Amino acid sequence: MTLARMGTELRCQCIATHSRFIPPKSIQDVKLTQSGPHCKNVEVIATLKDGKEVCLEPTAPWVQLIIKAILAK
Amino acid sequence: MTLARMGTELRCQCIATHSRFIPPKSIQDVKLTQSGPHCKNVEVIATLKDGKEVCLEPTAPWVQLIIKAILAK
Repeated sequence: MTLARMGTELRCQCIATHSRFIPPKSIQDVKLTQSGPHCKNVEVIATLKDGKEVCLEPTAPWVQLIIKAILAK
Repeated sequence: MTLARMGTELRCQCIATHSRFIPPKSIQDVKLTQSGPHCKNVEVIATLKDGKEVCLEPTAPWVQLIIKAILAK
């Protein structure tokens, strides 16, 4: 899987990012973590309605659209 | 405070939203939760670098700008 661990970790949590589109309606929440001393990457972790957690690519246009869609509801 | 509880709750987590601007550099992460059976509101919860959690207004332009800024890094 793509996720190393959860919680407020002292290192990066995403090893890889999910590349295929995920429909917004199957997403429960999305967590955006800033880069910082713990990790040089911005990390976007989506929790799906079935409980799975997936790392998404912050720069992918569909990821940005999903975030916009959640905010616009 | 503005936060009822943390975790994957079965109800809304934000009682009120913080209205003043928070500089992106003081934010550690931002969690966007979709509306659903547990809560009719979209909820945006920022964790600050000092560990505090604040609820933000999803429709506020500055909140949307902060999210864009995090993604664009």
